[in-house]
Amino acid sequence: MQFELTKDFIDRLTDIIDRQDSKAAISILDELHSADIAEIYNELNIEQAKFLFLLLDNEKASDVLAEIEEDDREEFLHALPSEVIASHFLEEMDSDDAADVLGDLPEGKKEEVLSHIKDAEQAGDIADLLSYDEDTAGGLMAKELVSVKEEWDVSLCIEELRKQAEDVDEIYNVYVVDEHDRLKGLLPLKKLIISKPDVKVFSISEEVISVTTDIDSEDVANIMRKYDLVVLPVVDTDGKLVGRITIDDIVDVIQEEAEKDYQMASGIVQDVEYSDNIVTQMRGRLPLLLIGLFGGVLGALVLGYYEGDLIKYAGLALFIPLIMAMAGNVGIQASAIVVQGIASKSMGIVSVFSKLTRELWLAFLIGIICSGLIFAYNIIFSDSIALSLTVSIALFSVIIFTTLLGTVIPLMLNKMKIDPALATGPFITTLNDIIGLLLYLVLGRILLPLF
Amino acid sequence: MQFELTKDFIDRLTDIIDRQDSKAAISILDELHSADIAEIYNELNIEQAKFLFLLLDNEKASDVLAEIEEDDREEFLHALPSEVIASHFLEEMDSDDAADVLGDLPEGKKEEVLSHIKDAEQAGDIADLLSYDEDTAGGLMAKELVSVKEEWDVSLCIEELRKQAEDVDEIYNVYVVDEHDRLKGLLPLKKLIISKPDVKVFSISEEVISVTTDIDSEDVANIMRKYDLVVLPVVDTDGKLVGRITIDDIVDVIQEEAEKDYQMASGIVQDVEYSDNIVTQMRGRLPLLLIGLFGGVLGALVLGYYEGDLIKYAGLALFIPLIMAMAGNVGIQASAIVVQGIASKSMGIVSVFSKLTRELWLAFLIGIICSGLIFAYNIIFSDSIALSLTVSIALFSVIIFTTLLGTVIPLMLNKMKIDPALATGPFITTLNDIIGLLLYLVLGRILLPLF
Repeated sequence: MQFELTKDFIDRLTDIIDRQDSKAAISILDELHSADIAEIYNELNIEQAKFLFLLLDNEKASDVLAEIEEDDREEFLHALPSEVIASHFLEEMDSDDAADVLGDLPEGKKEEVLSHIKDAEQAGDIADLLSYDEDTAGGLMAKELVSVKEEWDVSLCIEELRKQAEDVDEIYNVYVVDEHDRLKGLLPLKKLIISKPDVKVFSISEEVISVTTDIDSEDVANIMRKYDLVVLPVVDTDGKLVGRITIDDIVDVIQEEAEKDYQMASGIVQDVEYSDNIVTQMRGRLPLLLIGLFGGVLGALVLGYYEGDLIKYAGLALFIPLIMAMAGNVGIQASAIVVQGIASKSMGIVSVFSKLTRELWLAFLIGIICSGLIFAYNIIFSDSIALSLTVSIALFSVIIFTTLLGTVIPLMLNKMKIDPALATGPFITTLNDIIGLLLYLVLGRILLPLF
Repeated sequence: MQFELTKDFIDRLTDIIDRQDSKAAISILDELHSADIAEIYNELNIEQAKFLFLLLDNEKASDVLAEIEEDDREEFLHALPSEVIASHFLEEMDSDDAADVLGDLPEGKKEEVLSHIKDAEQAGDIADLLSYDEDTAGGLMAKELVSVKEEWDVSLCIEELRKQAEDVDEIYNVYVVDEHDRLKGLLPLKKLIISKPDVKVFSISEEVISVTTDIDSEDVANIMRKYDLVVLPVVDTDGKLVGRITIDDIVDVIQEEAEKDYQMASGIVQDVEYSDNIVTQMRGRLPLLLIGLFGGVLGALVLGYYEGDLIKYAGLALFIPLIMAMAGNVGIQASAIVVQGIASKSMGIVSVFSKLTRELWLAFLIGIICSGLIFAYNIIFSDSIALSLTVSIALFSVIIFTTLLGTVIPLMLNKMKIDPALATGPFITTLNDIIGLLLYLVLGRILLPLF
């Protein structure tokens, strides 16, 4: 039942496309889900994709277009005239998907495509959705929904549902509104089916959770996850029902957020996918590497400044890699825990002070264990007690200090409304490395002459 | 409308609990959604939580228990007798949630609680679900669903729905089965409402995507995301309908996977949350640090072996931090891109060879840029052309080599059915560091005498 993309399949398909064999192509496409066809897109060039997609009926074509990755879609639409985009793809599309598609086009083409959409109401809905920020509830919502009035009875609702059902693909609930279209409640389809025809809507309507159009998409995701919602209605500032957000869009938001954080922790500063071209890849990867390079040069300067000590106390240089690795690792760990705590709100309402106390306790334990182990190693394998002590004391200090930094920085960033995940990124890591190195050399200069 | 947890609120609530003022507590709880009550749990001790949760009616109590974090739940249930767990919490719970709750209990207590559930069918369902691996479709599914026979008409379906609706909280679709209960199709509630009463089910039933009980939960998540599903039916090996998976459980799977990857990239090896105690935190954090420590010692050994060169060629030591930082960063970046490519399946079907070629191209460009910059810096600020050339050539080689390693290792891990995200974790990072260092020193020994 599951479709699996194979090299054989693609070879067969491109062969059919090269022969321009519409009949064979259609019979293959008929068997496939739109999500599968979208997956095939990655393996074709634009001309091949164009041939294929124009064979689809409008409904399937619009489903496929909604599933293709943003960058690819932009490129693909570039190769199509505005009339075709409007008639073949957008007219059958849900308003939120249509707005997403249009949002990627250049301003001029956007207007042009909109003017070719025949259904004036749909064109208006799409234009309206385009006015919201992409990363808010308004930017995520679709206009398609079924609403009923509080004072109606069940049979009138069912009649209304019959009328509206054609425009709305997936219906799980109908929304209950008052005479001014203000959202009052929710009516699951199940209740509509099992209730008697003459029951009034307000007597079976349930409480409903909603958001306003300006709520951030991450907050929308948190609300839908927390309350296990499949659909979330969106209201304007007057409480009027203006749209609904479905969970599939939110799953994408969650996935993107997670990927962004993961990439940030891996030192990639821009959304990069494996399939992106070399220029995008470079844009994502180079910034950290340049910061790392700069950090490395700073490191060289610091070491150069302490060159005298490094020559005088042979052995001090040997543990530079150890100190730097530990400084980076300890700092990132502390930051990662805080970043996830902020994201999942599991940090609760304890004060910054108690967070710090706890982290420092942990750092103290970790420091004791790690510097204890290194001390044992050095005592056994090296002949210098002075060096052994210096390395261990420096390691302990570095662990405490970078934990402090790693805890405070994401909290500060969050307070300043900057994404705290930045703290696990390149800049802070490099900072930790250099500070760790400096701390080691300063302590070495102070401690080594003492022994 | 949104509930926000504040320190004031918690103070007021704990005050009420301390006074054992049931009436005041109930009037507060009545206003709150079960997800909000679950959030409050984090701020209470077990005795306080017990007092509060036993005041809830059975339905709300079971909702709250399903929402609490796993670790907390285990601890909380430990403080309750088996009869109370069964009657107050489990009997009203959906079978999948009940199985999750029971799954965390020790074997003996599990049996005891099961024996106290009065409804034999429900107890059987739960016991059945407990037999599946947690991380498979069987472990995720719930038994509650509404199924109808192919040959029924719409009015009979609605009658059946009325009968079954009480047991099933959220219904979006009913499933169509044949006389042997084999899954044949799907009937959205919307269609049930708008179709005429005498229409036969098979004539309006839609195609349905399903999974078997043994499918891995990550694959379930991928399928539901790809096909934008809200509910996914689960069948046994004979094609018999045995359960359904709802999207809210999948959202949790996606979230957990993402958190695991993020933690792995941040050097945390075990699922750790901010609210976990110090022992769990240490278990998550220490392993990487010990590996890092070991790597640091290896680094010291390598440097010790090359100490002669480091003394002979002053300046060679200065760029150790730079080489190590770049080795680690380049390797992690390459791995992260591959790991995400594997996870999202966006790598398509290209061969390992063409993946490597592409990555090496990228590494070549990055290497040229970074080593070029360092060469320019060294030529300007240092007086040794030999050192400048050595550092740049070494940096270039390190970038190429760690990219290779960073690309191949996750692909290999994936081939060996090991989570490729391990590649962005501590072990590989440390390996990259040491290999980078070694490469630098070897090249220094070869190149520096040449100039």
